Amino acid sequence: MSQPVDQSGPVETMMAADAASRMFGIELLDYGAGWARVGLTIRDDMVNGHGICHGGVIFSLADTAFACACNSWGPVTVAAGADISFIAPGRRGDRLTAEARMRTRYGRNGIYDVAVTRGKELIAEFRGRSAELRDRRA
Amino acid sequence: MSQPVDQSGPVETMMAADAASRMFGIELLDYGAGWARVGLTIRDDMVNGHGICHGGVIFSLADTAFACACNSWGPVTVAAGADISFIAPGRRGDRLTAEARMRTRYGRNGIYDVAVTRGKELIAEFRGRSAELRDRRA
Amino acid sequence: MSQPVDQSGPVETMMAADAASRMFGIELLDYGAGWARVGLTIRDDMVNGHGICHGGVIFSLADTAFACACNSWGPVTVAAGADISFIAPGRRGDRLTAEARMRTRYGRNGIYDVAVTRGKELIAEFRGRSAELRDRRA
Amino acid sequence: MSQPVDQSGPVETMMAADAASRMFGIELLDYGAGWARVGLTIRDDMVNGHGICHGGVIFSLADTAFACACNSWGPVTVAAGADISFIAPGRRGDRLTAEARMRTRYGRNGIYDVAVTRGKELIAEFRGRSAELRDRRA
Repeated sequence: MSQPVDQSGPVETMMAADAASRMFGIELLDYGAGWARVGLTIRDDMVNGHGICHGGVIFSLADTAFACACNSWGPVTVAAGADISFIAPGRRGDRLTAEARMRTRYGRNGIYDVAVTRGKELIAEFRGRSAELRDRRA
Repeated sequence: MSQPVDQSGPVETMMAADAASRMFGIELLDYGAGWARVGLTIRDDMVNGHGICHGGVIFSLADTAFACACNSWGPVTVAAGADISFIAPGRRGDRLTAEARMRTRYGRNGIYDVAVTRGKELIAEFRGRSAELRDRRA
Repeated sequence: MSQPVDQSGPVETMMAADAASRMFGIELLDYGAGWARVGLTIRDDMVNGHGICHGGVIFSLADTAFACACNSWGPVTVAAGADISFIAPGRRGDRLTAEARMRTRYGRNGIYDVAVTRGKELIAEFRGRSAELRDRRA
Repeated sequence: MSQPVDQSGPVETMMAADAASRMFGIELLDYGAGWARVGLTIRDDMVNGHGICHGGVIFSLADTAFACACNSWGPVTVAAGADISFIAPGRRGDRLTAEARMRTRYGRNGIYDVAVTRGKELIAEFRGRSAELRDRRA
């Protein structure tokens, strides 16, 4: 679970500047060309009014894995959109992992699948649609 | 921006127990049967590594509007899934509003559309798929 | 149900060349800037192995409404993607109508919502993502 | 390209009764538990007004692969919804193949990914959401 991640790649640079992922407590666990794995522990302040993890927190974890995977190639790439299916509820204290893998790239677009899991149990499935920026700056 | 929202309805009860929405600083602005409006100001710690609002924060705002709208009927209802399209970036300090409206309900399922805006500008479009729980408890 | 549609606009030109919509028996009923309405009667050869209308036929009807709406502006525009929710089954002999309406346009992208109905009953909800071609030719 | 598919399984029974897939010229090539592969040749009457294969035909092919995969388990299962991304246009005469694979099943729900290809080239990516019927009849 430790991360022997390169200190100078585009993903580390992006994550070092990502205040939001830090606010969520999201850790970059590992990544390579077209894939990434990140983790988060569900805090007390991430639980919604039904007593389960807020869907936005699960989406945020998946979205960060997606961002790491689609920026692994170098050019600045953002999310054009995403679809998420919630499969099982997360509970406070759960350790969640999200693993993103590129499914395809075409033109400046890409599709990445992200599985959010708690151990071996699937919590959510996310499919992100990426768009590479023309001028490399957001 | 505050609203004279009913203190005893299912949405207020749910929101009062929603630690995650509080963590995000999301406010319930108004709601009725099948619709809701919520707001959030983008904080410094909501910005990602590209210097724009993390997609997960925008999703969380839309998801909370969706939750308020689909729980407005009474029975406990959760998100089965959602699709979001990111239209324009949010910036730190921006005041965002998300307005959810029911599009249809069938069986225990529903579809709700949520527009996330900054003033009159559209930031994201979200379509949520809801599932009413059988036993009314999450 | 008759169509007093303009004979020379981009939508009529596109539909006149659309062999696939003709194969499905899809009729253009009406359209304007950013919207369109088309119809189809479910034939015996449109029913699947469960005895209900094939989802692909319902999608095709919605997709044609979407194409008419997003090409109503002039520039050649194609579908980048779409999401459909099937709400109620169609049966042989049913007369279905699909009405597409633009939700937003940004850059060369657009989002259009399409409701497929049988009389007043909702059969499917479709949300299309459009992309305007740079050189105006497919 | 033809397959020695079992003559008595739930998928063959379903496909034998599927008039719509026959109308499209869709062939069942192979399948097993949770997966299926089907093929179609783009006919002249499947081309739209932009001179490329109608998106509804590509969706129909993917949807049939999805139906075969999700009915491979036995219980009657229908599509609750699906998302498709169009990656490259199909042309008249192209031979397309769609391969569906289960991603997950939970309760009576499932998620299946379908890749539509022309040889090694990706034409579309489809993700279907399935619902198993309670009484096994559509």
